[in-house]
Amino acid sequence: MKAVQVTGPHQLQIIEKEKPVITDGHEVLVKVKMVGICGSDMHIYHGTNPLATLPRIIGHEVTGEVEAVGQDVTNLAIGDKVVIEPIETCGHCYACRSGRRNVCAELEVFGVHRDGGMQEYLVMPEKLVHKVDSALDWTESVLVEPFTIGAQANWRGDVRNGDVVLVMGAGPIGLCCLKVAKTKGATVIISDLSDDRLEFAKAWGADYTINAWNSNVNEEVMAITKNEGANVVIDAVCIPKTFEDAIEVASVAGRVVVLGFDTKTSNIPQLPITKKEVTIVGSRLQTDQFPEIINLFNNKIIETKGMVTQQFPLEQIKEAISLIENDPNEVRKVVLSFD
Amino acid sequence: MKAVQVTGPHQLQIIEKEKPVITDGHEVLVKVKMVGICGSDMHIYHGTNPLATLPRIIGHEVTGEVEAVGQDVTNLAIGDKVVIEPIETCGHCYACRSGRRNVCAELEVFGVHRDGGMQEYLVMPEKLVHKVDSALDWTESVLVEPFTIGAQANWRGDVRNGDVVLVMGAGPIGLCCLKVAKTKGATVIISDLSDDRLEFAKAWGADYTINAWNSNVNEEVMAITKNEGANVVIDAVCIPKTFEDAIEVASVAGRVVVLGFDTKTSNIPQLPITKKEVTIVGSRLQTDQFPEIINLFNNKIIETKGMVTQQFPLEQIKEAISLIENDPNEVRKVVLSFD
Repeated sequence: MKAVQVTGPHQLQIIEKEKPVITDGHEVLVKVKMVGICGSDMHIYHGTNPLATLPRIIGHEVTGEVEAVGQDVTNLAIGDKVVIEPIETCGHCYACRSGRRNVCAELEVFGVHRDGGMQEYLVMPEKLVHKVDSALDWTESVLVEPFTIGAQANWRGDVRNGDVVLVMGAGPIGLCCLKVAKTKGATVIISDLSDDRLEFAKAWGADYTINAWNSNVNEEVMAITKNEGANVVIDAVCIPKTFEDAIEVASVAGRVVVLGFDTKTSNIPQLPITKKEVTIVGSRLQTDQFPEIINLFNNKIIETKGMVTQQFPLEQIKEAISLIENDPNEVRKVVLSFD
Repeated sequence: MKAVQVTGPHQLQIIEKEKPVITDGHEVLVKVKMVGICGSDMHIYHGTNPLATLPRIIGHEVTGEVEAVGQDVTNLAIGDKVVIEPIETCGHCYACRSGRRNVCAELEVFGVHRDGGMQEYLVMPEKLVHKVDSALDWTESVLVEPFTIGAQANWRGDVRNGDVVLVMGAGPIGLCCLKVAKTKGATVIISDLSDDRLEFAKAWGADYTINAWNSNVNEEVMAITKNEGANVVIDAVCIPKTFEDAIEVASVAGRVVVLGFDTKTSNIPQLPITKKEVTIVGSRLQTDQFPEIINLFNNKIIETKGMVTQQFPLEQIKEAISLIENDPNEVRKVVLSFD
């Protein structure tokens, strides 16, 4: 079978490998149907993901169909439409004991530390395979994983009914954060440099849009909120300046959600954090968000029309990457299709 | 009656003013018995508290005796030993609606925005006057307010049984944080530049002490925790470097508590916040911590022997301030006594 392997910076190839087999009663064989290409896949390809080890089969936004199950599998059956939860944890460290296994001290992420989903078949432990409604299109179920990232950001930011949430950045993660925040009853302001992205975000439910190219985002947010500030700021831009701005524009008792992996530093004073008693939270991957998102998808509370903009067969992975690199404004989510 | 008023930087005088009277049925007349001198009082005196307005009667660590009660007062009686909760809030802003009235958008702190406790009598609304056990010494009850600051820092940092807590700084607030963390079942590491302070902290329950003058605090914490890091870091030093160090030494799913009002900036990268999914929280004043601390004091779960190091009569406020300024290593908590 075929798989997409990164061997070094800007070095990627389609390899042939043996189809995996179930060796444990709790395992499931999944025939992969669609895999999303994420920013972190691009970082691994570009050699700028400090956590990835090489060579690596990339991809962690995976949906497919159950082709076989081990003898001890109870919750899944052949033919089920499923999504993959791409993290493996130790179960006994401080994070795992605290219900925060997404930051397990021995965390392994499929597609980063272990081989991921850009291959025709995967064998996974049952606990990491979640069933979704068979009525969902593959272009919907492939979005469950990125939406869990949005759900985690909303959970970490403690987004509540009636809150004003500022989402910085209307790329795929910003859009997922927006949609989840709307399900919680928040008013959402979203900022971006692109009018096209903002227009799409508006259609996806944003209450206010701000173009950061020709407006001062913080001033606009203060005007919209009558100088209260945003109760939650989710920074999906992740540059040093946006982190600084986020703390400044947060309301009293506000929350700032950090999603960046940048080693560049921001200049952060303690005064606004203490004076407003702000809470700044990192949000990484997700913990226990798959059931919530799958429920919202199955019940059409979250609809994702328009997010997947292009599909490529596995063999055209390089063309897919070129499109993302060269025409970023033409893409939201590019996926590999395995049919 | 006499009161201590700050009129400008380094300008402080004892003034004569009329004894206040109850004008509302819900008010209480308190005869002040003891007032602690806090770092923030010193900042107002030095002209370095950006929030204070002048002229101002300072002091917010206040204990006394009820001398008269309004006709609608139900929970207090003449002769009760009491402590003052020194904040007034609007009740309807986002912070107040979220149970976080300590950062009310219209917050007024007695001794900062309104006249405070360094006067012989105070009239206060009943809701801000808390009864304590009559068996407590004034040198104990005067410490309730600073201990609520420690309780807030522990609450904001979500200190749990079994956590390893690093308290940076063994001054009065660091010591209060230490004692409260011990009541929660944490292992506490405390750092300071003074061996004398660390020795006192050890006697107060610290499990480990680190002298930051001749040791690398983060390296020591990593050794003590077998490279897990501190689950909670409470930064009671509040300089740019300690904030940076706190984020670095926090464990996965760790919490960093910020208490500083510094406008100087720290250099903070996003990577460790996201990678470890750290939570950074400002902690200011307190919300609803008086009942908890009073309970711990009344039941001798927290004992405070040794914290009050010097007492001065109100008339000697300038001598008290000189002592704090000139012999900082000789003092922990200096109080004004009104008898």
